[in-house]
Amino acid sequence: MDLFSKVGYEAAGVAEICEKCGISKGAFYHHFPTKQTVFLELLEKWLADLEAAMEQAAREVKSVPEAFRAMASSMRGIMQVADGRISIFLEFWTQARRDPEVWERTIKPFRHYRRIFELLICRGVQEGSFKDVDPVLTAHTLVSFAVGALLQGVVDPEGAKWDDILPRSIEFFLHAMMKGQT
Amino acid sequence: MDLFSKVGYEAAGVAEICEKCGISKGAFYHHFPTKQTVFLELLEKWLADLEAAMEQAAREVKSVPEAFRAMASSMRGIMQVADGRISIFLEFWTQARRDPEVWERTIKPFRHYRRIFELLICRGVQEGSFKDVDPVLTAHTLVSFAVGALLQGVVDPEGAKWDDILPRSIEFFLHAMMKGQT
Repeated sequence: MDLFSKVGYEAAGVAEICEKCGISKGAFYHHFPTKQTVFLELLEKWLADLEAAMEQAAREVKSVPEAFRAMASSMRGIMQVADGRISIFLEFWTQARRDPEVWERTIKPFRHYRRIFELLICRGVQEGSFKDVDPVLTAHTLVSFAVGALLQGVVDPEGAKWDDILPRSIEFFLHAMMKGQT
Repeated sequence: MDLFSKVGYEAAGVAEICEKCGISKGAFYHHFPTKQTVFLELLEKWLADLEAAMEQAAREVKSVPEAFRAMASSMRGIMQVADGRISIFLEFWTQARRDPEVWERTIKPFRHYRRIFELLICRGVQEGSFKDVDPVLTAHTLVSFAVGALLQGVVDPEGAKWDDILPRSIEFFLHAMMKGQT
């Protein structure tokens, strides 16, 4: 993942991967049929870790608004480490339109994230934190915002004080969703 | 642009472009030093058209909330025609991290869009439509949402009823920003 992030997906050849890991090409191909397999597995592991972090954030807090705030804080760290990874994610998104396997493993996870947010928002309505908002619509809106903010943070890190904006945007959303706000 | 959208940026060679346009390679290179120049000019024209459409929408309406609604309607059309273009946009975003000229012409426009939104939101506060919201923060939040929604609409067109969600998300934002909402 270091190598992919540093030089980009195309330039990171199997020879370079093997050299960096100190393994033979024979050992590499014993485990992975192609470079793409390696990358998709790394990506899946990263997405699974992200999801686990999100779910832990949701479990540990007392209310759904607090869960959203905890996620916003963890997103700032994600943006800092994720730079190279998200950039390769972009390369895969461009491939996903033409390759069903890549699509399945890079685009489909977003449907799952929307579902996690829907359930969280339902819980927020049930616990009395949120007004009677539409969970499907607000989950879509929040995930679209998060995707757009992450992308802009990666491609234009100097374009704004992202660390400052992200938690304040989340407050904007919470203000719109929570009961008793004016 | 047809060719780029259909086969992708890499596969669309100068030979194919010339054949499709019925011109000689000599004529091509008389006008453009590289394929990248052609593509960046097409992209710039498209971004300029988008911006003109946004500004016209803002001029023709009586209030800023109406302007946002008009933009949301025009975004639905953009998503339908833009499929191939935005996908190549993604390819350029991945290049932009390593190439300053590409960065200048594909990333910098977003700063400009944010500025347009900031000015519109200021106008909305002045005309009395909006509460005293922070224009910089809300412009960031709206542009991040729009970028994320466009991208997801392009890479996962079947993942949601985007045509339905987009205008309703805009209503969510307007509801949060407008005076006299509960």
